[in-house]
Amino acid sequence: MSSAPLAILCGAGDLPLEIARAARLDGREPFLIPVFGVATADFSAFAHEAWRLGAIGALFATLRARGIGEIALIGAMNRPDWRELRLDWGAIKRADDIAKLFSGGDDALLVGVIAMIEREGVSVVGALDVAPNLAAPSGAAGRVKPDAEDEAAAKIGFAFLEAISPFDVGQSCVVLGGRVVAVEGVEGTDAMLGRVADMRGSGRLRAKGDAGVFVKAPKRGQDTRVDLPTIGPKTVAAAKAAGLRGLALAAGQVLIADRSLTLAAADAAGLFVFGAR
Amino acid sequence: MSSAPLAILCGAGDLPLEIARAARLDGREPFLIPVFGVATADFSAFAHEAWRLGAIGALFATLRARGIGEIALIGAMNRPDWRELRLDWGAIKRADDIAKLFSGGDDALLVGVIAMIEREGVSVVGALDVAPNLAAPSGAAGRVKPDAEDEAAAKIGFAFLEAISPFDVGQSCVVLGGRVVAVEGVEGTDAMLGRVADMRGSGRLRAKGDAGVFVKAPKRGQDTRVDLPTIGPKTVAAAKAAGLRGLALAAGQVLIADRSLTLAAADAAGLFVFGAR
Repeated sequence: MSSAPLAILCGAGDLPLEIARAARLDGREPFLIPVFGVATADFSAFAHEAWRLGAIGALFATLRARGIGEIALIGAMNRPDWRELRLDWGAIKRADDIAKLFSGGDDALLVGVIAMIEREGVSVVGALDVAPNLAAPSGAAGRVKPDAEDEAAAKIGFAFLEAISPFDVGQSCVVLGGRVVAVEGVEGTDAMLGRVADMRGSGRLRAKGDAGVFVKAPKRGQDTRVDLPTIGPKTVAAAKAAGLRGLALAAGQVLIADRSLTLAAADAAGLFVFGAR
Repeated sequence: MSSAPLAILCGAGDLPLEIARAARLDGREPFLIPVFGVATADFSAFAHEAWRLGAIGALFATLRARGIGEIALIGAMNRPDWRELRLDWGAIKRADDIAKLFSGGDDALLVGVIAMIEREGVSVVGALDVAPNLAAPSGAAGRVKPDAEDEAAAKIGFAFLEAISPFDVGQSCVVLGGRVVAVEGVEGTDAMLGRVADMRGSGRLRAKGDAGVFVKAPKRGQDTRVDLPTIGPKTVAAAKAAGLRGLALAAGQVLIADRSLTLAAADAAGLFVFGAR
């Protein structure tokens, strides 16, 4: 792991704080930059300085002044309306670059932001680069263990996600009775699990007792700094409501957010959380 | 096309009647066998004889007496509860075979039924064997034509369905903005299209005006006598509600049910119905 001074640009939710704590535990004190009007956690336990979206010049000046070598962009960030950005002089100097950023989709925007930061000599790193301990491990993460049938289901799911990888669809699916019964598209993980719950409830998807495995993995070649597959307490609750037996995650490549809460919830629900592949 | 006397075992809906009419137009008068308590259409325009599920011996006797060489199983058929089947002597003689049928899933049940019929020397054929004119043609089936972008979207969809083919997932997807945004699982085509409509409505899936293409094709190696991909007026209505531009179907391999109604609805809605691959 690099020892360059680390900054974390903080979006919404508690994840930026969680990553900051993990970095501190690893002996790497981060400097936090909560995005004004977006970040929601209490960052008072860390050195921090709020930053207004659009003040690109000020951001780069801060990074330079503090000798920041690496920055991680963590937490949900709504796509800003560029007409509402109050650009500072440093942004206006880069107006052409910024205009280009907004011509593509959300991923393209983030890819462009990363490239713009790296042109300033600061490396952009991912959450799991800063806090590898928060990734799904190899094997069971909680107390419940998958059985051979669960592992076979996980294998089908990983192979399926690998097969659809070139198509930039979702990152997860549900395998039940030896086949893929639901695939995540733009609707997202929680909506897909909600659908499985509905189909169990209506009898469209029949199975005795808890059955089925949720499988999640990044797309092949995916830049996880842009889009990191993540599970958390909500995923566990949705998997339980869908009557599943557990969660199979690509080891080292999926973030378990709110780790202790997530694993406690899984233990309590009798679900395994399992890293493999 | 075979000239052997043709029977149609009729399940629920109007499709059995539609196939029977198409066979008659082709100069092949079918004998209809509506399943008692399941078939719903009015079969009085054709020679027919209702049949009670479970009376296997009677069915085979009828087929033999009429010299039937081919039979098509058409229309929705709920999985019967074998405890409620009143088996006749011909069924009891085959009790072992029948017990085995019920140990697998719905597809396995139908595969078993087909094998059992074929052991009696009667070929089981598919709807499109009897009525090839009801399949999606090559090119536009209605008045609206896809443009080059639509055809590119269809190509992505067909390639995607081909890639997931080994996994026995759904037979359809929606492509929008160059990517697959929704994939059909066990929930079925209409629910998937409803999801796309919801995502358009909520802004989760953003696009200007009508956008996106529904793509449907059979799985590679799929026995279309067991599971024939089908669209109809409901599919067109759901595609319209989802704000799509049209439907791309595997030419010759997808049944357009209620053909005139379906194509009139597509024309009225400004949607293309296009056969390719």
